[in-house]
Amino acid sequence: MSFQLTILGTSSALPTSNRYPTAQVLNVLGRFFLIDCGEGTQTQMRKYKIGFSKIDRIFITHLHGDHIFGLIGLISTMILLGRDKDLHIYSHSELQKYLSAQVNFLYADEIPFRIIYHPLNFKSVQMIYEDKKVTIYSFPLSHRIPTCGFRFEEKPVLPNLKKQKLEEYNIPIRERQRIKEGGDFITSDGRVIPHSELTIYHYKARSFAFCSDTRIDESYIESVRNVDLLYHEATFAEDNQELANITYHSTGKDAATVALRAQVGKLLIGHFSARYKDNSPILEEAIKIFPQTRAIAEGDVIDVEKKLL
Amino acid sequence: MSFQLTILGTSSALPTSNRYPTAQVLNVLGRFFLIDCGEGTQTQMRKYKIGFSKIDRIFITHLHGDHIFGLIGLISTMILLGRDKDLHIYSHSELQKYLSAQVNFLYADEIPFRIIYHPLNFKSVQMIYEDKKVTIYSFPLSHRIPTCGFRFEEKPVLPNLKKQKLEEYNIPIRERQRIKEGGDFITSDGRVIPHSELTIYHYKARSFAFCSDTRIDESYIESVRNVDLLYHEATFAEDNQELANITYHSTGKDAATVALRAQVGKLLIGHFSARYKDNSPILEEAIKIFPQTRAIAEGDVIDVEKKLL
Repeated sequence: MSFQLTILGTSSALPTSNRYPTAQVLNVLGRFFLIDCGEGTQTQMRKYKIGFSKIDRIFITHLHGDHIFGLIGLISTMILLGRDKDLHIYSHSELQKYLSAQVNFLYADEIPFRIIYHPLNFKSVQMIYEDKKVTIYSFPLSHRIPTCGFRFEEKPVLPNLKKQKLEEYNIPIRERQRIKEGGDFITSDGRVIPHSELTIYHYKARSFAFCSDTRIDESYIESVRNVDLLYHEATFAEDNQELANITYHSTGKDAATVALRAQVGKLLIGHFSARYKDNSPILEEAIKIFPQTRAIAEGDVIDVEKKLL
Repeated sequence: MSFQLTILGTSSALPTSNRYPTAQVLNVLGRFFLIDCGEGTQTQMRKYKIGFSKIDRIFITHLHGDHIFGLIGLISTMILLGRDKDLHIYSHSELQKYLSAQVNFLYADEIPFRIIYHPLNFKSVQMIYEDKKVTIYSFPLSHRIPTCGFRFEEKPVLPNLKKQKLEEYNIPIRERQRIKEGGDFITSDGRVIPHSELTIYHYKARSFAFCSDTRIDESYIESVRNVDLLYHEATFAEDNQELANITYHSTGKDAATVALRAQVGKLLIGHFSARYKDNSPILEEAIKIFPQTRAIAEGDVIDVEKKLL
């Protein structure tokens, strides 16, 4: 089952001819989470075959235009296509005012679905969503305006039971869930068959964290610790360190430093300033610090593979 | 001097992976007029090298999302780039409410330029802009909501004076403008040298009209009569005539019929429904009626050449 990220946009605020502003879709076991929604997101979704009806939850890091201008177009298209499912948006509470004014202006009371706004907390880590398979947290970043990162966690994955052992010990169905969850099996003659002998493919639960926009800051390192995949903005290279400081953005070096300190599996960098037609200076300085770094491009699909424990 | 149209988007409301929503830029003698502004217009401008600072006047036909969703992104970029010139927007009066709410929400009082809204009249033909070289008219179209087309006219072009004749008759500088404007020259010995003998390259003033979105309607034929270049929407082919009727859109046949009846020079069709991956059915039915028809694509540049009278 998939844990797959699709990149829809990699630019920062100023438009370029070949990059789109920030938007990514994370597919966790068939749940599609849209993270940020810059102008043109719906076009990119069509291009990279992310169905509009699959998106039920949108996560908005902050209210700068390059992260939100695609929302009204996407919602309009959902209306045109006759969507009737609820749409959940996790964002700063002010987004509701901004967006619902536009929706009401354009569609009055004719919207065939509900938009449910979930305000984020910018002071502390919060669990903002949970279902049987996934937990999602928000955590504060350090930008010019209130900004949150997000951490998506697969819930611990239970092992499979070995078919051969089920037959060998004639393990009844009612016992099986308990063994999957870590229990041993006791045979009718009192022998203890340990959990480890009965189970195979015990995978590590997968995780992804999204950090944009932000300057490097001690406060959020713990929130991204040990994730398999970290996206961290890297708007500039070190040659523009001063500009990064002024604008509360990160360099390639900053992103890699966060990845190293948080001991993540892989690092993705993006949100490249329009001044870098070629992002290799940003990538190169990151790789020196954290070799498992990749500079993302529109259309990239990154799978987080299952790993045995 | 140029009279040049650049196509930025050719799709109708639903997004496709390879078309952008409606936006065109008309360059009349160095004045750049943006007509409609669908989502992604700023990206397309960057791609096709239309400088943001060149745009001083934006013309919005109507308030459907696929014609306006690019405005806030474009304006944001103008703010980021430090624009200080006025920006004029010609549109339904309600756009000001919609757009200024967004601008105020995002930028409060920190906008470094004025946005001046010019409300359109949807009842009759109006002259909405005039300078030394260009006149622009709006005229009502027939769509589900109030919609205007636009007609851009170069002012009559004065001829050049023949250098050889200026010398032969020793024509003083103070006489030259009068001759250019149609006067004859009278020599010191009383001979009348006719205007036609003294002038060359007397060009016809060029014109372009923009009709989208609309169903075919008697009322606007006169407003586009004799233009050199007509853009007319052709959302559908005849196989979807009923859908065209219901949605107040045109077919290829409708667009060509308008072009034929108004005796225009060339016809451009666009605003293609997402159901036509290939627009050739729409183009083919138009060409049967009006052979000088072209189906537009993103990045097309169409020059209206100067023609001798």
